Amino acid sequence: MTASSITPRPRAGTPADPATAWPGRRRRRADHDLKREAVIRTAARAFYEHGYHNTSLDDIARELGVSKPTVYYYVASKEQLLFECFRAGLEPIRAALAEVENSAGSSRDRLRRVITDYARAIASEYGWCMVRAEHQDLGPELSARVRALKSEIDQGIRRLLRQGIDDGTIQPCDPRITAFAIAGALNWIAHWYRAGQSMDAGQVAEAYVAVLENGLLPRGATGSKA
Amino acid sequence: MTASSITPRPRAGTPADPATAWPGRRRRRADHDLKREAVIRTAARAFYEHGYHNTSLDDIARELGVSKPTVYYYVASKEQLLFECFRAGLEPIRAALAEVENSAGSSRDRLRRVITDYARAIASEYGWCMVRAEHQDLGPELSARVRALKSEIDQGIRRLLRQGIDDGTIQPCDPRITAFAIAGALNWIAHWYRAGQSMDAGQVAEAYVAVLENGLLPRGATGSKA
Repeated sequence: MTASSITPRPRAGTPADPATAWPGRRRRRADHDLKREAVIRTAARAFYEHGYHNTSLDDIARELGVSKPTVYYYVASKEQLLFECFRAGLEPIRAALAEVENSAGSSRDRLRRVITDYARAIASEYGWCMVRAEHQDLGPELSARVRALKSEIDQGIRRLLRQGIDDGTIQPCDPRITAFAIAGALNWIAHWYRAGQSMDAGQVAEAYVAVLENGLLPRGATGSKA
Repeated sequence: MTASSITPRPRAGTPADPATAWPGRRRRRADHDLKREAVIRTAARAFYEHGYHNTSLDDIARELGVSKPTVYYYVASKEQLLFECFRAGLEPIRAALAEVENSAGSSRDRLRRVITDYARAIASEYGWCMVRAEHQDLGPELSARVRALKSEIDQGIRRLLRQGIDDGTIQPCDPRITAFAIAGALNWIAHWYRAGQSMDAGQVAEAYVAVLENGLLPRGATGSKA
């Protein structure tokens, strides 16, 4: 038998994913993912309500009604749990940036889409962890990964700003400072927004788009120089 | 001798301040204030560099080259020290708000002044403590005072926004959301700004005024509805 006669094993995720042949296995995997997500979501709420330092894995296990070893089955440590909360919250923003990267439409419209999804992410239960996952709570490795993920978002927003200045749909500005100002305004949502109060996440996103796009000066007025 | 014949004792701070008669006493008071400020400033730097939880009063005493009891002479606890750092940073913003309260000029100009002083305060060494003094690090009393001080700033900015919408120098907007967006953008400076790098605090302030006043849309374009 030659090497070329061996049927290549399909990669996971392709239509011929071997897991599809074993529905039980697929179901177990989906079940595992769901339970892991529940652990992360519960941790995100607990960190937000009581603070990272005041929350133990015991607290999270108790909240879920499971044993601490069960929590350890899904995450290696409290530190990793904080990182997973951070990553879960960031994922929709990364997805939005990736999606608009190659989409048609003006840079203004693409940036608006990213701002909208960013605002919604920060208004989610992961917002607190996304914003307050302090570097000193994470060891050097996870801390470096947080910085890399944050930098990816930051660079993506700067790129959209530069493209918008080029295609004339964004006001000429310093892309670095403007990206910081946008991120800061949006990240702050985690400090004041509470789900279930007067605005839902979509309304918050819409209001922020209006503020960031319009600026403080009346639209007829001459703006300040960047 | 009737009560009216008693020469009233001048209040401290008036030209006839009794302390002026004892230069040594005045000097001692000034000396006390200077030393207390040095303790607060050193703590602000240490909290920023190593995190609040990772900094002890021993570390701060060592940094100052004094004993721990000397630090206790100026502040009652590490918690109070965090609060004093917060208050020291907030003071120039409160002063700016108070000063523009009764000043002439458009609301736009007065808001610009407050944004400028706010940006400078966050770019100062107190910025980190101002932004990250978490409620869970402070007991209920100091936590309530932090919230009251923050609320005072927030209400002051909302008031300026409302006045600006009324006098036509500010774009119609939701004052609450807009005040949050302004504070968020400015507070975020503490996360990325490092003194002694490419921009000084004044340049940061100027850049933020431009971003916040102009908004993202080109100044000729029709803005989004608030």
